[in-house]
Amino acid sequence: MASSFLPGEPERPVVKTEIPGPASKEYITKLTQVFDTRSLNMLADYTKSVGNYIVDPDGNALLDVYAQIASIPVGYNNPVLRKAAESPEMVTALINRPALGNFPSHDWADVLETGILKVAPKGLNQVFTGMAGSDANETAYKAAFMWRRQRDRGGPAVEFTEEEMESSMLNKSPGASELSILSFKTAFHGRLFGTLSTTRSKPIHKLDIPAFDWPHATFPQLKYPLEEHAEENAKAEADSLAEVEHLIKNYHVPPAAVIVEPIQSEGGDNHASPAFFRGLRALTKKHGVLLIVDEVQTGVGATGKFWAHEHWDLPEPPDMVTFSKKAQTAGFYYGDPTLRPNKPYRQFNTWMGDPARALLFRAIIEEIQRHDLVANTARVGDYLFGKLEGLAKKYPGQFDNLRGKGQGTFIAFDNPKRDEFLKKAKKFGVNIGGSGASAVRLRPMLIFEKHHADILVEALEKVVSS
Amino acid sequence: MASSFLPGEPERPVVKTEIPGPASKEYITKLTQVFDTRSLNMLADYTKSVGNYIVDPDGNALLDVYAQIASIPVGYNNPVLRKAAESPEMVTALINRPALGNFPSHDWADVLETGILKVAPKGLNQVFTGMAGSDANETAYKAAFMWRRQRDRGGPAVEFTEEEMESSMLNKSPGASELSILSFKTAFHGRLFGTLSTTRSKPIHKLDIPAFDWPHATFPQLKYPLEEHAEENAKAEADSLAEVEHLIKNYHVPPAAVIVEPIQSEGGDNHASPAFFRGLRALTKKHGVLLIVDEVQTGVGATGKFWAHEHWDLPEPPDMVTFSKKAQTAGFYYGDPTLRPNKPYRQFNTWMGDPARALLFRAIIEEIQRHDLVANTARVGDYLFGKLEGLAKKYPGQFDNLRGKGQGTFIAFDNPKRDEFLKKAKKFGVNIGGSGASAVRLRPMLIFEKHHADILVEALEKVVSS
Repeated sequence: MASSFLPGEPERPVVKTEIPGPASKEYITKLTQVFDTRSLNMLADYTKSVGNYIVDPDGNALLDVYAQIASIPVGYNNPVLRKAAESPEMVTALINRPALGNFPSHDWADVLETGILKVAPKGLNQVFTGMAGSDANETAYKAAFMWRRQRDRGGPAVEFTEEEMESSMLNKSPGASELSILSFKTAFHGRLFGTLSTTRSKPIHKLDIPAFDWPHATFPQLKYPLEEHAEENAKAEADSLAEVEHLIKNYHVPPAAVIVEPIQSEGGDNHASPAFFRGLRALTKKHGVLLIVDEVQTGVGATGKFWAHEHWDLPEPPDMVTFSKKAQTAGFYYGDPTLRPNKPYRQFNTWMGDPARALLFRAIIEEIQRHDLVANTARVGDYLFGKLEGLAKKYPGQFDNLRGKGQGTFIAFDNPKRDEFLKKAKKFGVNIGGSGASAVRLRPMLIFEKHHADILVEALEKVVSS
Repeated sequence: MASSFLPGEPERPVVKTEIPGPASKEYITKLTQVFDTRSLNMLADYTKSVGNYIVDPDGNALLDVYAQIASIPVGYNNPVLRKAAESPEMVTALINRPALGNFPSHDWADVLETGILKVAPKGLNQVFTGMAGSDANETAYKAAFMWRRQRDRGGPAVEFTEEEMESSMLNKSPGASELSILSFKTAFHGRLFGTLSTTRSKPIHKLDIPAFDWPHATFPQLKYPLEEHAEENAKAEADSLAEVEHLIKNYHVPPAAVIVEPIQSEGGDNHASPAFFRGLRALTKKHGVLLIVDEVQTGVGATGKFWAHEHWDLPEPPDMVTFSKKAQTAGFYYGDPTLRPNKPYRQFNTWMGDPARALLFRAIIEEIQRHDLVANTARVGDYLFGKLEGLAKKYPGQFDNLRGKGQGTFIAFDNPKRDEFLKKAKKFGVNIGGSGASAVRLRPMLIFEKHHADILVEALEKVVSS
């Protein structure tokens, strides 16, 4: 059975050669001369890839549940996206790229309102647009620092002092603030200098790069199955919140904001309960610290809600929500007007995003709504999770700490020989990614259906039983 | 006379209304509700803009010598770019965006070699691709830090110590290195956390944002006309180089690299002589410090060379050259293979650039070469400079410190009432930008011709004489 949403998918994976095969190897040899290919996973021919299937130059077609590090939303060569890409609007946007802060196009408000803002998280009706996830988080951090200093200064009307202006030019306090962003252990928020200071994934991401003296708290390490460890897990979450509060009150570089992922993704798919996040919202509110929710990987439907933080039933929204990846553009949503700094040109850069990519997100949203793909993902995720529970019982030790129940297809498990597991999966026709130390993370697209889940489960079984 | 390079340009500017006119005002009111418009300069209708002319929704058509903060290379709605934007290759690239480090497309080497690398600066045959100027500079900084630590550690084969790995996760030395990037006063290199620490343009760009304790040296402040101040200027440059050397040897956070713009652009169009830059290359080489040339604003033809540092006649190339803006994509060029870090995933992110924008740069390069637009810019720049010298003589005090001779159309002057000057220019049909405290900076596109220069000069004369 092929896809219900997209024409032209193969019925099943096709594995014709070793991966990389001879044609791929030739291309890789050429590419290595000018581009670092040591992190290359597989080469792709995107003209031939379709729907849930990534196709390589040797004619191998793999069911892709990695999806460009969770960034392809509605399938390769989706015809609705193709139509948007071929539209006169897109062509104009591509060849006349504006400096959005200075010279926005007359229809920019319309593009925002029918696209990026149409899916704005509840309570957040403003957006600052950017280029990619790191950029979205860094501009959110900047907004947090300016907001906090403005509050402490006595409001937007209070002018900067001479001392502040002079010391800022020397990278010194008080002009350069001595404030921090609090993040969590095993978090990933990006790899530029500000975001990397909040990223705590792996040494290889951080080694040799100067970092800010910013605090981090322990993220609750839940035990699975959840129902057998309710008490311990509640304690882990309470301890984490207590640590956050302690750091907010005592860290020598005070946090202006706490940033958290709804599910720590690069860090190994670490979950916490809605109660934990409600606690975090209450705590940050109590201490006048902003809460930034990093939905770069969790956003745009994969957890069975458009935004993963909708699972939490928060009494008040986060202060900022950052997005990228499946949105194919980036930025941060906010609601409080005081998060716009008190003067122009404080939060500014040349491009401030990309209208072409904003048009693409608009088409993605249309496609998601047309097929109700968020509901599809919730439904297929439940189905897949059930099947994986079966596998976990059948193959003890191979699908450890199965997690992501009720979180759409945002599912992971641990395997003791994870890297080998991922390699083997290719032989059985499936492209899967890993994260953290031992997690196999599933990141299907939103057009992933039950029959794709069946193919995946069959392949996973072959991987552990072969 | 209309453009020789592009069909459809108006003969002259058209100013029908105040700017913003009634139609623009309506759009702006709507946009302000969801997007910060306080830095808005003018609204544009890009469907109607053409060549050197930016058109607004009220039908005003201004000769655009600001060009989206120097980022439009070959004119609005350039037909060659349109063709590239409509090509099947572009559509595929737009709708199937890869994680380039993991899953590059089979033709990525070809896209690089026929595009970005076709214009690689002499001696630099490798590229790391990125999204925008800030990103290009930050990844270049990361390369510098990893390179330096690797050298000090004893080479790529030396493994990280346990202490380095553990301390890196705590943002502490030795894992997080205590090294710096040395930049210059009045430099601008971007506004993310690492680049902002090297940016020394204005307090409004830096206030409230935490910064690294990195050093900066005085950029030579040349006096004009150059021929009347040869001795003083040579001394200013010698002093600057001595300060750089002193900081390299003594700053308590040692520099891994020096970053410099060929012409400090946002900082007010501050120039230095080729001898200064040759001195800087010699000095950095002598002390084992990398030299990064930031060509984000100067690159891609505007100075009458493809890269501005070609004016310097360097005996050895810079270690890295960063680019963006007119390239419509971004990244850094390098040559030394040891600038690829010793392990994969150290210099990595999800998208690592954008093949769609790489295709656009390829088309830009084709268009530049087809019409020999770099030579055109050199020629028209000389013509324009001569005319401006005439104006400067005729209107003393209005075109102070006229600079950029022999640097294509990359020309600037100071005006005591700069902001008013720029506003008035719109009334006379010209869109111009400022920089630094009092500079009027000219940033025409590469398709700017003599008759455009005549229109510009005529308008400038009206501005100062009205």
